Amino acid sequence: MSSAALTVSAATGTGESMHAFMRELFPICRSITGAGVRETLTAVGRRIPLELREVPTGAAVLDWIVPDEWNIRDAYIAKDGHRVVDFRESNLHVVSYSEPVRAVMPLAELRPHLHTLPEHAEWIPYRTSYYSRTWGFCLAQRQLDELADGDYEVVIDSTLEPGSLTYGECFLQGERDDEVLLTTHVCHPSLANDNLSGIALLTELGTRLHAVRRSLSYRLLFIPGTIGSITWLARNEGQLSKIVAGLVLACVGDSAPLTYKRSRRGGAIIDRAAAYVLGRRDTEDQVVDFIPWGWDERQFNSPGFDLPVGSLNRSREGEYEEYHSSADNLELISPRSLEEAFETVCEIIEVLESDRSYVNLAPKGEPQLGKRGLYPQVGGPAAEREQLALLWVLNQSDGQKSLLDIAERSGLWISDLRVAAERLLAGGLLAAVDIAA
Amino acid sequence: MSSAALTVSAATGTGESMHAFMRELFPICRSITGAGVRETLTAVGRRIPLELREVPTGAAVLDWIVPDEWNIRDAYIAKDGHRVVDFRESNLHVVSYSEPVRAVMPLAELRPHLHTLPEHAEWIPYRTSYYSRTWGFCLAQRQLDELADGDYEVVIDSTLEPGSLTYGECFLQGERDDEVLLTTHVCHPSLANDNLSGIALLTELGTRLHAVRRSLSYRLLFIPGTIGSITWLARNEGQLSKIVAGLVLACVGDSAPLTYKRSRRGGAIIDRAAAYVLGRRDTEDQVVDFIPWGWDERQFNSPGFDLPVGSLNRSREGEYEEYHSSADNLELISPRSLEEAFETVCEIIEVLESDRSYVNLAPKGEPQLGKRGLYPQVGGPAAEREQLALLWVLNQSDGQKSLLDIAERSGLWISDLRVAAERLLAGGLLAAVDIAA
Amino acid sequence: MSSAALTVSAATGTGESMHAFMRELFPICRSITGAGVRETLTAVGRRIPLELREVPTGAAVLDWIVPDEWNIRDAYIAKDGHRVVDFRESNLHVVSYSEPVRAVMPLAELRPHLHTLPEHAEWIPYRTSYYSRTWGFCLAQRQLDELADGDYEVVIDSTLEPGSLTYGECFLQGERDDEVLLTTHVCHPSLANDNLSGIALLTELGTRLHAVRRSLSYRLLFIPGTIGSITWLARNEGQLSKIVAGLVLACVGDSAPLTYKRSRRGGAIIDRAAAYVLGRRDTEDQVVDFIPWGWDERQFNSPGFDLPVGSLNRSREGEYEEYHSSADNLELISPRSLEEAFETVCEIIEVLESDRSYVNLAPKGEPQLGKRGLYPQVGGPAAEREQLALLWVLNQSDGQKSLLDIAERSGLWISDLRVAAERLLAGGLLAAVDIAA
Repeated sequence: MSSAALTVSAATGTGESMHAFMRELFPICRSITGAGVRETLTAVGRRIPLELREVPTGAAVLDWIVPDEWNIRDAYIAKDGHRVVDFRESNLHVVSYSEPVRAVMPLAELRPHLHTLPEHAEWIPYRTSYYSRTWGFCLAQRQLDELADGDYEVVIDSTLEPGSLTYGECFLQGERDDEVLLTTHVCHPSLANDNLSGIALLTELGTRLHAVRRSLSYRLLFIPGTIGSITWLARNEGQLSKIVAGLVLACVGDSAPLTYKRSRRGGAIIDRAAAYVLGRRDTEDQVVDFIPWGWDERQFNSPGFDLPVGSLNRSREGEYEEYHSSADNLELISPRSLEEAFETVCEIIEVLESDRSYVNLAPKGEPQLGKRGLYPQVGGPAAEREQLALLWVLNQSDGQKSLLDIAERSGLWISDLRVAAERLLAGGLLAAVDIAA
Repeated sequence: MSSAALTVSAATGTGESMHAFMRELFPICRSITGAGVRETLTAVGRRIPLELREVPTGAAVLDWIVPDEWNIRDAYIAKDGHRVVDFRESNLHVVSYSEPVRAVMPLAELRPHLHTLPEHAEWIPYRTSYYSRTWGFCLAQRQLDELADGDYEVVIDSTLEPGSLTYGECFLQGERDDEVLLTTHVCHPSLANDNLSGIALLTELGTRLHAVRRSLSYRLLFIPGTIGSITWLARNEGQLSKIVAGLVLACVGDSAPLTYKRSRRGGAIIDRAAAYVLGRRDTEDQVVDFIPWGWDERQFNSPGFDLPVGSLNRSREGEYEEYHSSADNLELISPRSLEEAFETVCEIIEVLESDRSYVNLAPKGEPQLGKRGLYPQVGGPAAEREQLALLWVLNQSDGQKSLLDIAERSGLWISDLRVAAERLLAGGLLAAVDIAA
Repeated sequence: MSSAALTVSAATGTGESMHAFMRELFPICRSITGAGVRETLTAVGRRIPLELREVPTGAAVLDWIVPDEWNIRDAYIAKDGHRVVDFRESNLHVVSYSEPVRAVMPLAELRPHLHTLPEHAEWIPYRTSYYSRTWGFCLAQRQLDELADGDYEVVIDSTLEPGSLTYGECFLQGERDDEVLLTTHVCHPSLANDNLSGIALLTELGTRLHAVRRSLSYRLLFIPGTIGSITWLARNEGQLSKIVAGLVLACVGDSAPLTYKRSRRGGAIIDRAAAYVLGRRDTEDQVVDFIPWGWDERQFNSPGFDLPVGSLNRSREGEYEEYHSSADNLELISPRSLEEAFETVCEIIEVLESDRSYVNLAPKGEPQLGKRGLYPQVGGPAAEREQLALLWVLNQSDGQKSLLDIAERSGLWISDLRVAAERLLAGGLLAAVDIAA
């Protein structure tokens, strides 16, 4: 199948399909390690060829140590044998990485372990405590307000023991060894936009990329946030020079416009491809500069790696009201938002795939197109656009400028330029130049 | 005579003179080869020292071949012995490069050879068929509508035989061998804006440049479009490195604002000189980026030559309603438009002539101007402007920056800076630097 | 004392203190040489450690010669024994550098020696004639209009003889030998904005800089305009490479917004520091490009020196109505304007002092801040700002980018970044890089 099939113009139901996958994954209690991540990756692996990697607790990864593995079976706060806060109702009720506890204590003693969002009385916050041992519960402010004084039974039936950190890797070899790195984090429990939307989009992208002819190779990572990318970087340091572009995907399912955040370098090919795609739209989509904040792009863009990895989001980390609360649920997500984000990523990848450089083999004057059957036979706007694409490719192809350079300068569609280049190549007027990434 | 006489401030009748020349040339039936081009160049040669070059049919020029020479004596479509379409009324009636025909045929058979502009019922279109042998007539839609069924006598008394391609070259040696290339195309029959306005302006420019002291050398080319510039480039490849700037002139007589289109390089001295001249005006004149579309700048800016050649136009190729029709006639042209365009070209050339670099010979601190008689004796705005010009030239003249650099940075008139530089040169405070083009 | 004390947030009475110093200096009759300059510098020297330099008349300094020393005791125009123009009332009444005269002459003969400002009938103009020997009086147009015909006694009791040119230099050694050059001119008589405001500000700056820990060294020059900077440059040519930044201070006491004028280089560290400080304010303060006009920055920025020296002013040379007239008096000056200008200079210097480069010693991935006690313990906007500053410094510190680079890119306060860098340095995560100026 041709890579031209990467982008499709009409709705194809991918939005609904992604939303369905999110509904399937929503109940699982994920964290940075443990059974929830494995279950999630197994579900992804039913859709795309995914390899699960296990890295043992205690492994030194860059400046970090792989932590103990956390698993949880049950948790609750009960009064008089009646559960008033229940992990079975929402896995957000337990602070992630809570150590096990089984005790009876008065409300006053319990209270420092209870977290709420006073400004949203009905929402349960999402809290973690990965690197300092403690335990805690999250609950709605309304629930807290209703708790009477007295003794409570407090149970967290968790384990926090040596095990391993799990992540998933899907590699799709292309004609070239140059790699595009596509990642999403998989460490959040029942939260929808952050991070199930990214998991669903990256999985869908895997199925699409798997099906088409690829000039570039693609590496899709499903990793726990921060410690996951740090672990992957530590284990793959020798292979990083293959990465010519990358994209961190997160929070792509809500209704906010798309934001592409540039890589640290700022002028990498991924930055230009994303700016080209977003810039040709009549939307509020925007391109912003790199900042060392957000998701795993922070690790990929650290100065010792400085990889050309940008990120694509709708609402951004910490910048939407429902962020890290029970309100970040499936109702926040629309299939249409997922589909638009998905098609945008496909268009960006299409630009990466198209961005070849050529040398005009008849560079002195314009070659006579007519005698080669390259001159449009009929007139009209389409023929003029076609001829202009031919002339731009001929005029700029001195081996230095790529089709993206030409698209940026001419204002033409890169897809038109690619068709023109292929016709000129067939006509013997161009030669392809190997890309130095 | 000083080169300062290149530009004149008040109207001098050059507009009327150019318009008169256009009227003289209008009736001639020009094409890319043949007697019409020779007759036109002979008329130009009566005004400026022009050499006519003949390049034989079949000569290989870059990717092209010089075509057969086309000449036409008469052509008509007649019914019942009465001419209903008559070449003697307008040479646009015959498709340029029509092969000879002498036949009687019914209207149905004739019809595929007839071209009209349905949206302008009174206008005759201009059509050519240089590289595929055929014949045809152009006529007003109204004429076509009036043709009754029945047999027509169809005559095109043309020859299409080995001969030569003709172009005219006027070289004006200056103090330096660096050349400015100024070209216009000469291949259109009775069309006024495209291309008689360019021929008239370039001829007038030749008389003006011939009369003044020139620092730079000038090469004026009167060439058939596309095949003419390709032929000239093919025959002069070894000399192209002398070209430091160039300008393709076309469509300069209508009422649209002036547009300067940059060279492919974008930052060449001609691009900066034109932007400087147009930018200091309170008009709608504009500077636009290079595109590989338009007239012979397409050939000069092909990547194998990449010459610093821009173009100056009013209405642009294909972008005015009357383009390539009988409505592109002398009524579309005003002497005032011609004169403004002419003076603009003179100002651009004046910038090129002025753009020298100097070295301040007393670069440490400001030299004491008073003791050299360079300090203005009386005050007022003119004296302040004069002093500021002296100080800017002194401050910036480190051998790297030219007067155009200084004009762009300071916002001063380059003519003021030139006067200042000449005074400082005379005062021993500056030395001229040879220009590396 | 820490250099952090360079800038202070609240009003400290420095404005009043500077205004008081201006009042003390106002009556003194200064010129480019002579007793008035010495008296002024002696007053400055009571506040900061100042060395007075004397350069003899006739000394060759660059393209110039140190002129004769001018001193004046008395001057008047009298009629019938009654002084109608009297130097004792305003030292502006005598053209600076007037040669001595003692004569009786009719008004007609006197008139060419009288200078007024016709458009301001009550203002006395300020005139000089340093380099052509003459004499003259300045008076209000109203005074001139009242002069009756008849003979006048004309006395200028001056001397114009070999002596010396005097300037003051205050050098404050810092931890590094890299120097910041701070200058003001001291050659104007009873004029307030031009130049007493500059003298007062630079003196106050000396006291402040003297009191704090300095990373950089500072050289403060109190010099006669033009000939003073030329003299200093001529005598210190071998030391100029130490100058990493400089600022010419003049006209800083009136009510106009602050204008920073860039150095000739345009992108020097002083240009960026000033743009950073002014750009973060919600005021009409502005940054403008270098022009070879103004005060002693003209000499420092001459092409043979090309020093990174900008200038800071409120109203600029020649651009306020009261310029070079008796209306440029103490009433034009406010302590608040002086203080704002002073604090601005301090902030600019603070940026220069803060602008170090660092290398992230754990550049691969983000280091784990928590285990080093660098992760904010409590949340909220301040903690987030603190954490963001840490992350920006870590992300950008590759040895190439300085804190100013990071401040410009991140939009954060350089003071926050400096705190972050110091914490990371203490935590062993950063190493300082020597600055190549």
